[in-house]
Amino acid sequence: MERNLYHVLGAKQFDRPELERLFAAAEKMEDVVAAGGDKRLSGKIMTTLFFEASTRTRLSFESAMHRLGGSVIGTENAAQFSSAIKGETLEDTIRIVTGYSDVIVMRHTEIGAAKRAAAVAGVPVINAGDGAGEHPTQALLDAYTINKEFGRIDGLRIAMVGDLTYGRTVHSLSYILANYQDVMIDFIAPENVQIPPYVKHYLDEKGIRYQETQDLNAVAGSADVIYQTRIQKERFPSVEEYEKASGKYIIDGAFLDRMRKDAIILHPLPRAGEIAEEVDADPRAAYFRQAVNGLYIRMALVAKCLNLAD
Amino acid sequence: MERNLYHVLGAKQFDRPELERLFAAAEKMEDVVAAGGDKRLSGKIMTTLFFEASTRTRLSFESAMHRLGGSVIGTENAAQFSSAIKGETLEDTIRIVTGYSDVIVMRHTEIGAAKRAAAVAGVPVINAGDGAGEHPTQALLDAYTINKEFGRIDGLRIAMVGDLTYGRTVHSLSYILANYQDVMIDFIAPENVQIPPYVKHYLDEKGIRYQETQDLNAVAGSADVIYQTRIQKERFPSVEEYEKASGKYIIDGAFLDRMRKDAIILHPLPRAGEIAEEVDADPRAAYFRQAVNGLYIRMALVAKCLNLAD
Amino acid sequence: MERNLYHVLGAKQFDRPELERLFAAAEKMEDVVAAGGDKRLSGKIMTTLFFEASTRTRLSFESAMHRLGGSVIGTENAAQFSSAIKGETLEDTIRIVTGYSDVIVMRHTEIGAAKRAAAVAGVPVINAGDGAGEHPTQALLDAYTINKEFGRIDGLRIAMVGDLTYGRTVHSLSYILANYQDVMIDFIAPENVQIPPYVKHYLDEKGIRYQETQDLNAVAGSADVIYQTRIQKERFPSVEEYEKASGKYIIDGAFLDRMRKDAIILHPLPRAGEIAEEVDADPRAAYFRQAVNGLYIRMALVAKCLNLAD
Repeated sequence: MERNLYHVLGAKQFDRPELERLFAAAEKMEDVVAAGGDKRLSGKIMTTLFFEASTRTRLSFESAMHRLGGSVIGTENAAQFSSAIKGETLEDTIRIVTGYSDVIVMRHTEIGAAKRAAAVAGVPVINAGDGAGEHPTQALLDAYTINKEFGRIDGLRIAMVGDLTYGRTVHSLSYILANYQDVMIDFIAPENVQIPPYVKHYLDEKGIRYQETQDLNAVAGSADVIYQTRIQKERFPSVEEYEKASGKYIIDGAFLDRMRKDAIILHPLPRAGEIAEEVDADPRAAYFRQAVNGLYIRMALVAKCLNLAD
Repeated sequence: MERNLYHVLGAKQFDRPELERLFAAAEKMEDVVAAGGDKRLSGKIMTTLFFEASTRTRLSFESAMHRLGGSVIGTENAAQFSSAIKGETLEDTIRIVTGYSDVIVMRHTEIGAAKRAAAVAGVPVINAGDGAGEHPTQALLDAYTINKEFGRIDGLRIAMVGDLTYGRTVHSLSYILANYQDVMIDFIAPENVQIPPYVKHYLDEKGIRYQETQDLNAVAGSADVIYQTRIQKERFPSVEEYEKASGKYIIDGAFLDRMRKDAIILHPLPRAGEIAEEVDADPRAAYFRQAVNGLYIRMALVAKCLNLAD
Repeated sequence: MERNLYHVLGAKQFDRPELERLFAAAEKMEDVVAAGGDKRLSGKIMTTLFFEASTRTRLSFESAMHRLGGSVIGTENAAQFSSAIKGETLEDTIRIVTGYSDVIVMRHTEIGAAKRAAAVAGVPVINAGDGAGEHPTQALLDAYTINKEFGRIDGLRIAMVGDLTYGRTVHSLSYILANYQDVMIDFIAPENVQIPPYVKHYLDEKGIRYQETQDLNAVAGSADVIYQTRIQKERFPSVEEYEKASGKYIIDGAFLDRMRKDAIILHPLPRAGEIAEEVDADPRAAYFRQAVNGLYIRMALVAKCLNLAD
């Protein structure tokens, strides 16, 4: 509908210069937060449209908006989005909400929903997860964390572990990593939830090296980044399939001993047993630092959408 | 409880001078929004008490409050209003909430709930729909839209289409239209959901002409405004009654051809098939413009309730 | 995690000097509200984490935050806290939310949840009720109300009526009252929901006099404060146990006649029949004044947590 709107729909839209600008902007946001926030988005309204509950992600975006002085309206749960219940199309919903706010943050259950929303929206749309599709802001905060922890992404070896079929964050992160030099990705997944061919195809096209294995220990000593993920029960077609995938890869104290001293462990969180609590105290456990980075990245993205990046 | 509070409870409380003042105030709000909002309600708090989910209406009010610099607290769903679950009366709930905020916007499932609330509230109450009762702010935005699109309401012929028994917006709109000169209303409804006698009685008293028919095509060429509505499944006593009423009146491309060139189509939205998407691109499709007008009317009403209309 | 954070976890943490400082601060907040609020918490964010719905308490805290110029993010219902559904521990949730806000207000279903949260939080935690455990801010507003109504708490005789086993507010209030001189508590409860031994033990230790009876009329003429409570169906192990306790103590017009002329009736609300509506008009019915006091106490507590008490 509107021209020249800056939407955040998928990880593939980001090239390296844009990633570097974004990371620089996020770094500035760390100072803004440390100084108690600012008011650059005063008078601006964010609508959070969560057709699927995701409290963590929603609160992160709402915090980002408030830290910059903006306001938030929204709905926390799909089951309550009364217009959807009454049979309204996503497009109609977006057309209406366009009139209420300056930026829309949307989580939806269907792949491609964010793109459909952006096609009719009169304000920027940020994809906060669309079904088994993408979750670009998670991937951006993951990459920001890697870059911050190592001072670079080029040349790193990154192991992605767990459910690589339904875990959309590993897809989005793979697309982001494809912008860097000499990156090597290890995909470690149970047989029934391996990384999909279309992700591998994209990496092939970009010339990114990767390997697939079911053996986490094989990469323990070589990976710079262990990106652990939760086996998401709710995304599996059957309990049997879930149980085949679940509980196979646990990061615990014994695993820490096999890891490199300068490696880090990431996790998009929430975790449900796949990283033992005994790991938390180790300096290589970077997942809580990673979660905080989500705020800075989202502040930077929201500010950019509203042309108030600086 | 408190004297001299300005409540918005039903459409009948509005006379023509007040409507004209309101429409002028809403028009000014269009400029306020275009300028990025203002801060006149800074420090004021709105409570949105939605005992029945209505995401669109709630977001519209919340956006109105934020655009004027105010804050919002609230609850999105009846099923979660924990005090109600615990057996609290509406009156007790309102007595408490009075202490938390400066204006209450309430959606309830029972006719007359807004009046009961206003009787004990210490702050202004705005009725955002009370069961099969009234929905005055919807009617006000409808009338504002008609006035804005035609430059007048006097002399227009308005066809209201669909479920006229359970569709409270057509009742409220009829009461508003009764303030104007030479208005003619066509009520077009399936046999089992016709306009109730008490609405007709009110129009009779005010000397407003109206006709009833089940044939939408009969008015296609003469109406200035086609006010289409959704057949609200959730308001019907049985599936059989719903199915009798549903799907009878569809506005599509073929219908557009029979309409006057200067007519408009309104709809309180959400729609669920009763206006085909092919109609959207026609300039006579005014329902998305209408939705945006809801924001301006609600900004004007909230500001008036808080004595900060200017 | 962080040192020197001021948490509000239980009533026992308050000694008399702190109570007096808090009541003085709450009294100042009455002036702040009368003046339309202030902006001392501008830029600060409160997270309301309600794992159990409690609309009244949540709205009270959110209003307190907004009246001081702060912002709120949150979730209204446990069933929607998506991370918890996915198996996340409370500790992990708190670690994350710490990064999003400046103070956490939490309602939880489990005893001790607030303490567990505070142990890992990087920001102050306020316990808004933890299962059958404590509800310290309710007890503080109760005590503030008694002090305001009588000008003192020393020397008063306070009757607590109803479900004294599951009703956590009477436990927390007993702990607060233990700070005062010559207080006498009457516990009036059905046989199956009497005041627990650990509360009596605490009072014994502090040298507070109390009596237990099942006869409300026995104290009608001697109590300065009748603290009525709701029999909370949702906390009983069985319907039979609930029915044994329910409906035994009703405060109505006839009861008013037996009360002292200068006594007051309190109730944490919501009520569900245990105080007849005919009582509301009597000046001794202090429960709606009590509810408003909740706002002032919570404003004072939030401001103290954020080091902006003055």
